[in-house]
Amino acid sequence: MTAPAYRRLSVEQRRRQLIEAALRLFAHSLPEHVSLDGVAALAGVSRPLVYRYFPGGKQQLYEAALRSAADELKQCFAEAGTGPLSERLSRALGRYLRFVDEHDAGFMALLQGGSVVETSRTTAIVDEVRRTAAEQILLHLGTEAPGPRLRVMVRTWISAVEGASLIWLDEGKQPELEELHGWLLDNFVSLMVATAARDPQTAEAAQRALDKEQEAGPVGDLARRLVPVVSDAVRLTLPPATPET
Amino acid sequence: MTAPAYRRLSVEQRRRQLIEAALRLFAHSLPEHVSLDGVAALAGVSRPLVYRYFPGGKQQLYEAALRSAADELKQCFAEAGTGPLSERLSRALGRYLRFVDEHDAGFMALLQGGSVVETSRTTAIVDEVRRTAAEQILLHLGTEAPGPRLRVMVRTWISAVEGASLIWLDEGKQPELEELHGWLLDNFVSLMVATAARDPQTAEAAQRALDKEQEAGPVGDLARRLVPVVSDAVRLTLPPATPET
Repeated sequence: MTAPAYRRLSVEQRRRQLIEAALRLFAHSLPEHVSLDGVAALAGVSRPLVYRYFPGGKQQLYEAALRSAADELKQCFAEAGTGPLSERLSRALGRYLRFVDEHDAGFMALLQGGSVVETSRTTAIVDEVRRTAAEQILLHLGTEAPGPRLRVMVRTWISAVEGASLIWLDEGKQPELEELHGWLLDNFVSLMVATAARDPQTAEAAQRALDKEQEAGPVGDLARRLVPVVSDAVRLTLPPATPET
Repeated sequence: MTAPAYRRLSVEQRRRQLIEAALRLFAHSLPEHVSLDGVAALAGVSRPLVYRYFPGGKQQLYEAALRSAADELKQCFAEAGTGPLSERLSRALGRYLRFVDEHDAGFMALLQGGSVVETSRTTAIVDEVRRTAAEQILLHLGTEAPGPRLRVMVRTWISAVEGASLIWLDEGKQPELEELHGWLLDNFVSLMVATAARDPQTAEAAQRALDKEQEAGPVGDLARRLVPVVSDAVRLTLPPATPET
């Protein structure tokens, strides 16, 4: 084993190496339990070296690690604009959930707030991830100038994905990640359809999206599973009886 | 006008009066912009009097105001266990959203975290509201020993309601509160139905709930609005063609 400290690294490589070490520690420990000594030890360097790169200490290193994690999270939502929407979204969501699974404690501490190292700057970084995700999804929906109903729908789903991720971690990662993934995708489809029932712009986007869905894809699968659940509720689609006068 | 300071108030009345004043200030200003002088002025008392009741200063007053707001929020979800589920939920949600509308800035600062006065204690108070809301809704669903899928479903909806409330405030209270209310109720129904398509326990609860819904109620209304949106998607319920061998 060669101690990484003795390798000659460029400034950027060294910086990257320290951020990687910090990310690994922040991923599974609460920020308050991460020390610069721990980061130095994991990277195989001295504490003064960490300070040379991050004179602001733990707070600066945390923000750099967070920025790097945020960039990775934003990448999750980059998807080519072809194929059924549910499959594009499924790939993006899969990458996001893999990140949650791999960075559990760090993800939780960050989104739940109240962490000792949280500042308005860290909040802004997290908000940027949310904004990027919303913009990407709106792009895939293909609506020009989306109105408040469509925007609130997409942003609410992102907030539900975040919330469900935290709840899933809190429930000891139950049910299985794959099921959470499928369920969150179902939620997007049902949320979009419910919103389409109120908003013509969303209805148009939903129609466009549904037209491209395949019987063998996730939406076909959901549609078939829905039939027995809603079959008894068909009576509700009848106009209500007018009270006798 | 009588200055309230000159009224003889019991210790409990005075405490209440100071908390009310603090709540009014925290409701529409960020916590960092609320001062004890402002609270004293609004209550018509001296600053030392505020300190006599809240020796911990602003942090203590903020926590007391938060606790009082949390108690009010928890009350929102108390509902008699009779009548269609959608109507019970609609009343609870209406009270919650009225609170959001009336305490906009305070609600936002609290839930978004990153506020200067946020501590693990304030986070615990907010979590308690979420937990109470989830327990109440699970009670109304009438499932004994709800499993992880049903629990995650209810908790995710609560998290979506919170998220949507923040997004709604961020979008300048667009669309109208009444529409947000109806839409969030639609979301509950569609989330429950989508979850029922995966989980037998949720399917049972959904069946029980749907059986009691009325054509003239919110679910009947949603069902009729859904027909045109999903009619073209009926083809997706057909079994996928098996590829030729």
